[in-house]
Amino acid sequence: MPEPLRLGIAGLGTVGVGVVKIVQNHAELLRLRTGREIAITAVSARDRTKNRDADISGYAWETDPVALAGRKDIDVFVEVMGGANGPAKAATEAAIAAGKDVVTANKALLAHHGQALAEAAETAGRVIRFEAAVAGGIPVVKALTEGLAGNRLKRVMGVMNGTCNYILTRMENAGLPYEAVFEEARQLGYLEADPSLDVDGIDAGHKLSLLASIAFGTKVSFDAVELEGIGHVSIEDIRRAADMGYRIKLLGVAQMTGRGLEQRMSPCLVPAESPLGQLQGGTNMVVLEGDSVGQIVMRGPGAGQGPTASAVMSDVIEIARGSRIATFGQPALSLVDAIPAKAAAPAPYYLRMELLDKPGALAKVAAVLGDAGISIDRMRQYGHADISAPVLIVTHKTTRDAIDLAIRGFAATGVVEGQTVAIRIEEV
Amino acid sequence: MPEPLRLGIAGLGTVGVGVVKIVQNHAELLRLRTGREIAITAVSARDRTKNRDADISGYAWETDPVALAGRKDIDVFVEVMGGANGPAKAATEAAIAAGKDVVTANKALLAHHGQALAEAAETAGRVIRFEAAVAGGIPVVKALTEGLAGNRLKRVMGVMNGTCNYILTRMENAGLPYEAVFEEARQLGYLEADPSLDVDGIDAGHKLSLLASIAFGTKVSFDAVELEGIGHVSIEDIRRAADMGYRIKLLGVAQMTGRGLEQRMSPCLVPAESPLGQLQGGTNMVVLEGDSVGQIVMRGPGAGQGPTASAVMSDVIEIARGSRIATFGQPALSLVDAIPAKAAAPAPYYLRMELLDKPGALAKVAAVLGDAGISIDRMRQYGHADISAPVLIVTHKTTRDAIDLAIRGFAATGVVEGQTVAIRIEEV
Repeated sequence: MPEPLRLGIAGLGTVGVGVVKIVQNHAELLRLRTGREIAITAVSARDRTKNRDADISGYAWETDPVALAGRKDIDVFVEVMGGANGPAKAATEAAIAAGKDVVTANKALLAHHGQALAEAAETAGRVIRFEAAVAGGIPVVKALTEGLAGNRLKRVMGVMNGTCNYILTRMENAGLPYEAVFEEARQLGYLEADPSLDVDGIDAGHKLSLLASIAFGTKVSFDAVELEGIGHVSIEDIRRAADMGYRIKLLGVAQMTGRGLEQRMSPCLVPAESPLGQLQGGTNMVVLEGDSVGQIVMRGPGAGQGPTASAVMSDVIEIARGSRIATFGQPALSLVDAIPAKAAAPAPYYLRMELLDKPGALAKVAAVLGDAGISIDRMRQYGHADISAPVLIVTHKTTRDAIDLAIRGFAATGVVEGQTVAIRIEEV
Repeated sequence: MPEPLRLGIAGLGTVGVGVVKIVQNHAELLRLRTGREIAITAVSARDRTKNRDADISGYAWETDPVALAGRKDIDVFVEVMGGANGPAKAATEAAIAAGKDVVTANKALLAHHGQALAEAAETAGRVIRFEAAVAGGIPVVKALTEGLAGNRLKRVMGVMNGTCNYILTRMENAGLPYEAVFEEARQLGYLEADPSLDVDGIDAGHKLSLLASIAFGTKVSFDAVELEGIGHVSIEDIRRAADMGYRIKLLGVAQMTGRGLEQRMSPCLVPAESPLGQLQGGTNMVVLEGDSVGQIVMRGPGAGQGPTASAVMSDVIEIARGSRIATFGQPALSLVDAIPAKAAAPAPYYLRMELLDKPGALAKVAAVLGDAGISIDRMRQYGHADISAPVLIVTHKTTRDAIDLAIRGFAATGVVEGQTVAIRIEEV
């Protein structure tokens, strides 16, 4: 039997402890599946004395993750601290410099520094694996990098932030406004310390940018992800969208088009009956579309100790088995700069407006749409007691520019009250 | 750059031609993703002159796949002929003996001879990969063997025969009986030459037995799969099940229990709102449950040229990248004999009977259930013009033995007409 594979684990929070548990509880299983022993040699965390749900007394202790990364007695540096910069970055760089392979759950780190880290690792003949960084326990990095590697990828989509999906689902099911559910989620401990990472789509955007790099052979370009959070999603639109057969999801979409690479993380409507539309609560879902395979949908837990540790361990096992795959599925130096698409591909849009109860009002709205080159798929006007009536329109495919033109046009008609809401309908 | 990886493709039907197309059309992509050239050296099929949707003139031709397998100028033998025995088996054995790696789409071959072939390959230092043999384009073999390798697997389920799911879906949507839809499927070319492979669950059972081996570290034991086809599923039960919130699926379930390994491929009820219940038409779905990760659901095309070729290519790419994973995820010699569970784990059951319209009839039925130790979760009696009324019962968890006892008891009451239908409800 070959030498044991020796791990140094940086970070003993929920995920780190989960990894320790798997290594301890499944030693024999791991030996059978990898042909060698997986051993934890050393660990690091902020506080050595903290009460943890795992026995770490048998491992060497380092207070400084950089020191851990450089230890002679580890082969793989497991980074489960988090944070785009600071110790996580310094320690990962140190690990590569010291000739270690790296397994990380850190989406922020890779979204911001993935290209540089991948180049450094490949120059040093080391690998960086990051299954746990995207969609928790769903083995989507592997599915994309390996399972679909015979395909030219066309589109990658996903609901990849469980907290946002929990909030949107709960708003719909309980009929509560965003602010109330946000507060609930905060009290339940579902939100990151900085909640904007969740609700502004940043965390999910990090994940999307990593999948896009693998899918399209482009350098990670998180800065090019068009981000829009869920803070403006109203309970009214959730209800109206449901009336029209849709649900609102914080949906990430990356696709390569003739106009460049599109990367969007934003509230979208999807058919309520589609797998994405059916997704409730904190579960994640990723949709991969390739030219040969068609559409593959993967669904599973996007966070939590067990699922995330499972993903970390899949990378450790891959390394233990001797597999050496480039960070983003092809050599980092062969990844090209993504040309960001200036505008999103055409799509149907959902429009909601308050129409004043005046003769000819609807005709004026229809004329504005016609002038903007937008045709109507479906329209619904609701009964009203007030001076204005809610009107919903589902358009045929059009551009965001045309929609913005129409919205300005509505304002000028004098028959549309307040701001018209427009939300993209993603065809899934 | 390393030497090209040279493929010999045995079989130029739909799948073989699909593989040729990917190799030809994505040469540059494959080079980037594997670091080497993927080349087809030689092919074999029954008829050289047949008109094919791909140019094979540049490849050496062999009429005999065994001769192809032994050629000095191939590294990987790609077996896409099919058949549990005969040329596919002989050629695969010859390939291993000649020191080739094997990529196969042949579930029947592996279900019957997987253990012997895996042992032979591992003794020779060769790998056998078979992503395309299970659930077409869904990268489920990879997900199980690699993505979830840090888990003790608890249960593997799936709808893995698209034709059966098409038939059941079409029966429900069109209100047609089994025989009519079977005939439709035959005319559409959806059925195997021997339709019993599809409708008796044999094909799906082959796939289940392969997943079970990986999941539980047991030798493939297709003979131990409890098989029940869809031929007895009635339109009446499809409708009544829908009334109670269920759909009928040909569902494969493999789980390790205290009483041994359970492998079943049979019509089951699943909640209509569950991912499995929502699955329409020819699409496949596999559900993987591990102790750390929880539940992962994968959905995608289970057949067809592009999806199956995509799966074949993922294996070719894995080999090109230098990955060497044991056929069933751990050394073949370490796989243990499965002890088949004598009975399926307890589950709720759906019962449908015709109850004669007599005073006390329902009380008699309830008494029989009580005597068998079965408690009722839900019951529904339908209005009727006839002398008997349809009665549906959903039980709480019970055993198949108890259900069979109750069915015999019903017959003895004199108030139940004809045969009571009992279908397992799988908790998903």
